[in-house]
Amino acid sequence: MNELELIQLLTKNLPTNNSVVTGTGDDCAVLDLGIPDRFLLFKTDAIVEGTHFTRDAAPERIGRKALARNLSDIAAMAGQPTAALVTIALPRGFDPEFVQGIYAGLNALATQHGVAIVGGETTTNPERILISIALLGTVAKDRCIRRHGSRPGDAIFVSGTLGGSIDGWHFDFEPRLAEARWLAEHFTPTSMIDVSDGLASDIRHLLEHDHLGAELLKSAIPISRTAKLKAKEESSAKPPLLAALTDGEDFELLFTVPSKLAVKLLDGWKETFPQVPLACIGKVTDKPGVKLRDKDGYKPMPTHGYVHFA
Amino acid sequence: MNELELIQLLTKNLPTNNSVVTGTGDDCAVLDLGIPDRFLLFKTDAIVEGTHFTRDAAPERIGRKALARNLSDIAAMAGQPTAALVTIALPRGFDPEFVQGIYAGLNALATQHGVAIVGGETTTNPERILISIALLGTVAKDRCIRRHGSRPGDAIFVSGTLGGSIDGWHFDFEPRLAEARWLAEHFTPTSMIDVSDGLASDIRHLLEHDHLGAELLKSAIPISRTAKLKAKEESSAKPPLLAALTDGEDFELLFTVPSKLAVKLLDGWKETFPQVPLACIGKVTDKPGVKLRDKDGYKPMPTHGYVHFA
Repeated sequence: MNELELIQLLTKNLPTNNSVVTGTGDDCAVLDLGIPDRFLLFKTDAIVEGTHFTRDAAPERIGRKALARNLSDIAAMAGQPTAALVTIALPRGFDPEFVQGIYAGLNALATQHGVAIVGGETTTNPERILISIALLGTVAKDRCIRRHGSRPGDAIFVSGTLGGSIDGWHFDFEPRLAEARWLAEHFTPTSMIDVSDGLASDIRHLLEHDHLGAELLKSAIPISRTAKLKAKEESSAKPPLLAALTDGEDFELLFTVPSKLAVKLLDGWKETFPQVPLACIGKVTDKPGVKLRDKDGYKPMPTHGYVHFA
Repeated sequence: MNELELIQLLTKNLPTNNSVVTGTGDDCAVLDLGIPDRFLLFKTDAIVEGTHFTRDAAPERIGRKALARNLSDIAAMAGQPTAALVTIALPRGFDPEFVQGIYAGLNALATQHGVAIVGGETTTNPERILISIALLGTVAKDRCIRRHGSRPGDAIFVSGTLGGSIDGWHFDFEPRLAEARWLAEHFTPTSMIDVSDGLASDIRHLLEHDHLGAELLKSAIPISRTAKLKAKEESSAKPPLLAALTDGEDFELLFTVPSKLAVKLLDGWKETFPQVPLACIGKVTDKPGVKLRDKDGYKPMPTHGYVHFA
């Protein structure tokens, strides 16, 4: 049983109540607790030594990553992050300076985005460090962008460039919070997700609720310099396109807008976020399945990105 | 460096913002996010295989405990729990039935208290199971009971009986949510905490903010049947009073009320919660330090309860 199958099993028949707008199945849980005109966003994410980082990474980068992943999920719903609780599970012989480094990286990113760190706990995990962060945010009810909602014909966009994140980007990415809020304010995307498992997987997560598919233009997929360099320099590296589609941990925004807004969006984005590439990579189709088009015709999309829990 | 020293170090200069009413230092973080007349309560708590449970315990009890500990913290502030996210970190060769058992125990307790389980994640922790739960609740602004606020002369109460929780109570305790809300509504305790580290420790957590102390009556400390039995049957067991003061994981309410309300409170409680003992164990003093009184005079309180992270 893999992670997806287990999650599907566990998320059947979860207890609910009338505060729940969206439980599982989107980037964050969405709650209506009576804040006038706003939903509460609620998310947890954990990183584990050996899977998401190794101990030879600077502790500041580890702490930053733990929070940045959660911030990326708030971004994917166009929210504003508010407050976080930090759980650090540590081996007994922990080095207090290492823990302080984790907090330093985390606090710096929190400060940058106006997030309060309101507590948490330290506990013991004898063999490895595990950091779990719980994050709250809010979003205007009429600007909350979900994974579902796209329509056939919508243009598909992705920010940044993809692939090769293991070389450092998985630590250093900037959660696209400002970009997402700008999008929600000016273009109201019909759907949005952050690319954490890889474009090949996450585009399916974006479309599967509405039983839709996509045609992507192979030449339009934005491949990172790192993925291209790796392919040149390492004989065992993935071809750059495959890396862009399946490496994961890109933490870019993948979203859809009505196609008539595509040009206006590209112009507005370039003006507002000149440092962040934005690519129109294809369109939503009414038939399920994702196809990749090049000059020779359609090719099947690799079926999986990075599958956690392997 | 022990857990307390590390936490003191880490909680200096945490990032904050104007939504924060109380960050660290109480049973939950308290946030004002604009819900009319109510605060948001935010808490995380993790349990780790080998520290808080072993794998020979029924998974239903493990899952129940993970949520119940968090509920007890919401109770300690007289709140109403709303929604939880569940993080389960598992060895790779996990048994899906075991995980389903964890969820079954957790879901049953959530349902009992009207809590929605709105998602979470599974991730890999190769050597042991770790469950971290993030819980939200709300509380009326004028009924939120803190750790600080007690005054010299206040009567000190504790619910239930204490000691010997390792024999089963640490799994089976009932979070005192209804009791705490009833208290806040009818008697507005001046301060409250849940007994998780042991009475000897937690009474200090209750009083230290206000630089106060306490005189406790030795004969009034409610000792559990389990602690008494253990002392009789096992030669290496703690004396029952010491067990009641230092075992921890009792998850009872420890609170203070103005002494003139003490009798009325005892009567009202007995009528409303006839199954749950309530004991008046002493009074708040203006001098820091906790003393234990018996017929021969004052004795010093054991200085420590159970210290996590040993």
